[in-house]
Amino acid sequence: MSAAPPPVADGPLALVCGGGSLPLAVADHVAARGRRVLLFPIRGAAREADYAGREHTWVYVGQLGTLVRVARPLGCREVVLIGSLTRPSLWSIRPDWTSLKLMPRIAMAFRGGDNHLLSNIAKLVEEHGFTLRGAHEVAPEILAPEGPLGRLAPTDSDRADIALGLDYLAASGRFDIGQAAVVAGRHIVAVEAAEGTDGMLARVAALRAEGRIRAARGVLVKAPKPQQDRRFDLPSIGPKTVEAAGLAGLAGIAVIARETVVAEPAALAEAADRAGLFVAGVRGPQG
Amino acid sequence: MSAAPPPVADGPLALVCGGGSLPLAVADHVAARGRRVLLFPIRGAAREADYAGREHTWVYVGQLGTLVRVARPLGCREVVLIGSLTRPSLWSIRPDWTSLKLMPRIAMAFRGGDNHLLSNIAKLVEEHGFTLRGAHEVAPEILAPEGPLGRLAPTDSDRADIALGLDYLAASGRFDIGQAAVVAGRHIVAVEAAEGTDGMLARVAALRAEGRIRAARGVLVKAPKPQQDRRFDLPSIGPKTVEAAGLAGLAGIAVIARETVVAEPAALAEAADRAGLFVAGVRGPQG
Repeated sequence: MSAAPPPVADGPLALVCGGGSLPLAVADHVAARGRRVLLFPIRGAAREADYAGREHTWVYVGQLGTLVRVARPLGCREVVLIGSLTRPSLWSIRPDWTSLKLMPRIAMAFRGGDNHLLSNIAKLVEEHGFTLRGAHEVAPEILAPEGPLGRLAPTDSDRADIALGLDYLAASGRFDIGQAAVVAGRHIVAVEAAEGTDGMLARVAALRAEGRIRAARGVLVKAPKPQQDRRFDLPSIGPKTVEAAGLAGLAGIAVIARETVVAEPAALAEAADRAGLFVAGVRGPQG
Repeated sequence: MSAAPPPVADGPLALVCGGGSLPLAVADHVAARGRRVLLFPIRGAAREADYAGREHTWVYVGQLGTLVRVARPLGCREVVLIGSLTRPSLWSIRPDWTSLKLMPRIAMAFRGGDNHLLSNIAKLVEEHGFTLRGAHEVAPEILAPEGPLGRLAPTDSDRADIALGLDYLAASGRFDIGQAAVVAGRHIVAVEAAEGTDGMLARVAALRAEGRIRAARGVLVKAPKPQQDRRFDLPSIGPKTVEAAGLAGLAGIAVIARETVVAEPAALAEAADRAGLFVAGVRGPQG
């Protein structure tokens, strides 16, 4: 847990962009507030076509030098890391000189779980004079609100499954594993670890096809890990999550309101209505 | 947790037999002590050929009447449930008259997790004048000893992975989900729920093939759930578990000594040596 964040600084914002549509949505929200955005799409993660019409500087994961050289003279003091990024191998990092001196520490960062990795990258960025901010701090529009996002809402039975899932995720969070579980008929049928949410939902679909999950429907529950640094590692859902949950035969998806990123809210609500699923922002176990 | 068990009673022992070789191994261990064994293989779970040469009475899950009618006149007062049994659908139970009166309660038993189901069946058996015993109480030979079962032993690095896995299983056990996790390089990469241990190991093999698990090897850790009724639901491993762990690229398997059933100890040790894996009985978190 970090202390209360300092007020957002003036000056341009550096946006280090992984894959998906979220980085550009964040860029647009920030720009709409009248703040300049410097885009640093990551090679191998961001799509070239998405950045063709915008000023940008390509970086490799671990190239702190480029960021420092381009952003600092422009008065930039804040960095946001946003978008999807598969856990990189040490060899894909392509360290520049600045990062090379830090390699032993970057290597250390790869040893533990994901949270450990991200915390260490955050420390490195901050030692170079930047403040790392969460995308939701500079663009709160990307967070799930409380309540249903589409037409449908969870039933009382769904709510009981959701409560059990949240309880489990609170208890398992300190182990730095997945942020999601599937609960059906008051029974936890799948828990996410290295396979990711999509992998877990595919497994639930297969178990259901084999008749090994008998409860009528069930719920995907996602929550941030208790100790998670919310600046760069909030859980996120999008239209594809809804599709995968539908294929797994689930009744819906519950996420923590104001602590979950919704990549494309309009497309997600539409996908949920079409598939007959609810997607709801709920209060966390403490909330 | 149950209180200390009463001393094992005299009279024949009723063995309700699921699938696999374990029920017959238990039958032989008990018979070797000079006690008569009444075999009740379960239709659809036990193999006919295994019971052809032995006196036995086929039952369906839920047929308490047959058990009562056959076993009680012979002075039998103790029942052991042993062997593999996929969670039955309510329709495959084929209730007899005794069980039919109990159907509402059996239906209730199917609502929650596995542990809930088994506890309720145990209660039903006991209300009919039998005492439910654990297979390991009547045949302690089937339990894993402390230390390695084959030639290899865990390294210090493996021991650190084992400790993390045990810690996780102790924390997640109260949710009545899986009894196993895979830890590689101090990172929990897979957690078992409805898919079972074999399903989880197949997933780890796939994740490794995709390069999504980078730690050199890793360990399968199995432990009983904290609140588990050890009379009929101990974790178990066999030669097939070793094979699956080998395909997942693991260094070995750790189980709780004296709280884990080893189906075929000699075949298991041989499989472990052949695959270059350790299989070790370790002390539980409290031990």
